[in-house]
Amino acid sequence: MNKETLKKNLREIPDFPKPGILFYDVTTLFKNPECLQGMIDELYEIYKDKGITKVVGIESRGFILGGALAARLGAGFVMARKPGKLPAETIEETYDKEYGTDTIQIHKDAIGKDDVVLLHDDLLATGGTMAATYRLVERCGAKQAFVNFVIELKGLDGRKAFPENVEVTTLLQL
Amino acid sequence: MNKETLKKNLREIPDFPKPGILFYDVTTLFKNPECLQGMIDELYEIYKDKGITKVVGIESRGFILGGALAARLGAGFVMARKPGKLPAETIEETYDKEYGTDTIQIHKDAIGKDDVVLLHDDLLATGGTMAATYRLVERCGAKQAFVNFVIELKGLDGRKAFPENVEVTTLLQL
Repeated sequence: MNKETLKKNLREIPDFPKPGILFYDVTTLFKNPECLQGMIDELYEIYKDKGITKVVGIESRGFILGGALAARLGAGFVMARKPGKLPAETIEETYDKEYGTDTIQIHKDAIGKDDVVLLHDDLLATGGTMAATYRLVERCGAKQAFVNFVIELKGLDGRKAFPENVEVTTLLQL
Repeated sequence: MNKETLKKNLREIPDFPKPGILFYDVTTLFKNPECLQGMIDELYEIYKDKGITKVVGIESRGFILGGALAARLGAGFVMARKPGKLPAETIEETYDKEYGTDTIQIHKDAIGKDDVVLLHDDLLATGGTMAATYRLVERCGAKQAFVNFVIELKGLDGRKAFPENVEVTTLLQL
């Protein structure tokens, strides 16, 4: 996927969700069929030979390409969600946010020891949610886990949230 | 997609989210590669010749097959979300729930007059959220709109929430 095409189609919204924040609105990438297809094609090329058996998408924008990518790779799709949303038995990790903490859960039986996992979300900022989800996947005993985001905010150094041996890919660096 | 395979893989959770409710847990369908692929293949067969240009998925389980289906159909993907989640200008509809009301939004520029739209969610219960989303798509002036759910709870008569001329499909009726 041409990075310039992605960048051109990404909407920037000043002062959302609060004054002083420039928000990158990925909805305009999903809405555009060329961008949607292009992102999935590129992700498929990166991960097609990794033996991925499960794609984990993070609530809720990570469900969009996550589901599509799981189908394309012939893998299953797993949701990582905020507390109270998953109906069966869960495991969870709590992590620090700018103010206070947050918690992310997956179903306890969602990932097994034979799984090779791709974790996906739309945006890498500080990496806190994804790093917590990565720990959940590790706790399930997954064989290996890869991490992907559509957009990486380079200034926030979110890659530091992950152990050095974790392969993190991003499609667009801003 | 074989209905028996879907039914066999669908997890039933008694007393969730509250006592007396039998919850159908679709996460086990998404997690199973055969079911995930089978549902998308079946939906693709139903909609491939309808000229769909946009798929609207309802927050948040509707994003999973919604995104995959948009990509497969060569369409764009649009999110229908609860208030406060979409960053650009929105339009909204409010609808009645069992206790009180709820509101659903889409971006004002998400759908245009040339669009043929497929609206998708995982479960048809009373149909309130989807009917409100359908009205949003109508207000955008879409040429035509189709409605799909994975599961239909027949006892709740949710199809009555839609005008009679709306084509509603479901993959599994329970």
